[in-house]
Amino acid sequence: MRTRSDYCCRLLLAYDGTNYAGWQIQPGRDTIQGLLRAAVVKLFDETISIHGAGRTDSGVHACGQVASFTAKIRIPPTTLVRALNANLPEDIRVLKAALVAPDFHARFSARRKEYRYQIVNAVVMDPFLRTHALHHPRKLDLAAMRRLARLLVGRHDFAALSSKPHREVKTTVRTISRLSVQRDGNLITVAVEADGFLYKMVRTIVGALLKVGRGEAAPEEMGAYLLGRKRTHFVTTAPPHGLILWNVWY
Amino acid sequence: MRTRSDYCCRLLLAYDGTNYAGWQIQPGRDTIQGLLRAAVVKLFDETISIHGAGRTDSGVHACGQVASFTAKIRIPPTTLVRALNANLPEDIRVLKAALVAPDFHARFSARRKEYRYQIVNAVVMDPFLRTHALHHPRKLDLAAMRRLARLLVGRHDFAALSSKPHREVKTTVRTISRLSVQRDGNLITVAVEADGFLYKMVRTIVGALLKVGRGEAAPEEMGAYLLGRKRTHFVTTAPPHGLILWNVWY
Repeated sequence: MRTRSDYCCRLLLAYDGTNYAGWQIQPGRDTIQGLLRAAVVKLFDETISIHGAGRTDSGVHACGQVASFTAKIRIPPTTLVRALNANLPEDIRVLKAALVAPDFHARFSARRKEYRYQIVNAVVMDPFLRTHALHHPRKLDLAAMRRLARLLVGRHDFAALSSKPHREVKTTVRTISRLSVQRDGNLITVAVEADGFLYKMVRTIVGALLKVGRGEAAPEEMGAYLLGRKRTHFVTTAPPHGLILWNVWY
Repeated sequence: MRTRSDYCCRLLLAYDGTNYAGWQIQPGRDTIQGLLRAAVVKLFDETISIHGAGRTDSGVHACGQVASFTAKIRIPPTTLVRALNANLPEDIRVLKAALVAPDFHARFSARRKEYRYQIVNAVVMDPFLRTHALHHPRKLDLAAMRRLARLLVGRHDFAALSSKPHREVKTTVRTISRLSVQRDGNLITVAVEADGFLYKMVRTIVGALLKVGRGEAAPEEMGAYLLGRKRTHFVTTAPPHGLILWNVWY
């Protein structure tokens, strides 16, 4: 049972997900949550549960993941950052630590999250982005992609976008507050902000945007499909390595 | 013997040097030149020498390396780019290919080259830059670093900066046409343009800049040392993974 005197801590994390089986603890596999919990338990010497704002999949990255945990002993935040990083591999970093109210929960307290998906749209892939962006050599119609993006903004039932059985979620209604498609040289960035995300939702949106960008579907048709009004399209989920959990708002 | 009918080709290359023992062919080790030569020989089916503009060290990267070779059979540049990339690992990419005059030589024809050195100046390292930038957590005095940079610009004898015996080079006089120290958020970039570089010259300049930036040496003192006028300082060569061969001019 939590008491007012408990030490509740919020961590800001960045990680390169290339070498991990995602956020969530899995027996026998290296996961971000698993390695972070091991580092925390080593310091606090008690059983501790770590909560994460977003349960990123295998290969997905983060530069703004938030984690929280409660402990009995107190370690000053600056010491905690240094000590945790000393016990974590180089591709997982604790950027900040802060004491928060005891009812703070990285996942349930989150009001809004942002994911970004990076696409290198050039004949030859940039070798420095090979693990952090999708290579798409063919031309893309950004105007059409933006038309689809605008159709998805707002409060909608995104059941058609989720590839997971709906047992775990009470509702598939989500509010996308921003969905932008920006180009900077060869790099296209899709940024999605929402109050919550269904399983593989961003990667399915990106798959749909790419299909529209290649001219294989009209934005309006694809929008109707994604919002569950038509079952006429097939959308390939974009691969995980282009996806980054960018920011979480509380 | 080269004839006017020979096919002489210039390649623009980008590579992540993390997993390689540098540019130059070495028996029993994976090098960029070695893998590129294997890919070229496979296509042209003849003995071919590959020349590179800069012989980057183990762990050093490139986004603007230039290579050249001469062959008897002719392959159109677009086909060549595709075919070479199909035979190279993902961390080495041929960005462009072009036919050039038969007297073109990637190294000897180069008029000027630019190297950049990246430094993350923050308490915690950015995990996405861990193989492409040096982590320097302590504060740096950029004004002092820039004072030293200005002293090195121009035509000087840089013998004090080279860590290699001078057998191979006729002269240690080089002209630095630009040496800038820029900050963008936590990322400090040192850019050096010169008509040629001695072995480990950029990494020694960066080591000197960091020493001055930490306040361990005055810019004027360090400048006098680097230009061979005083033997009073000890400079640590900065590690290779922050260095990138950025551009070559012909």
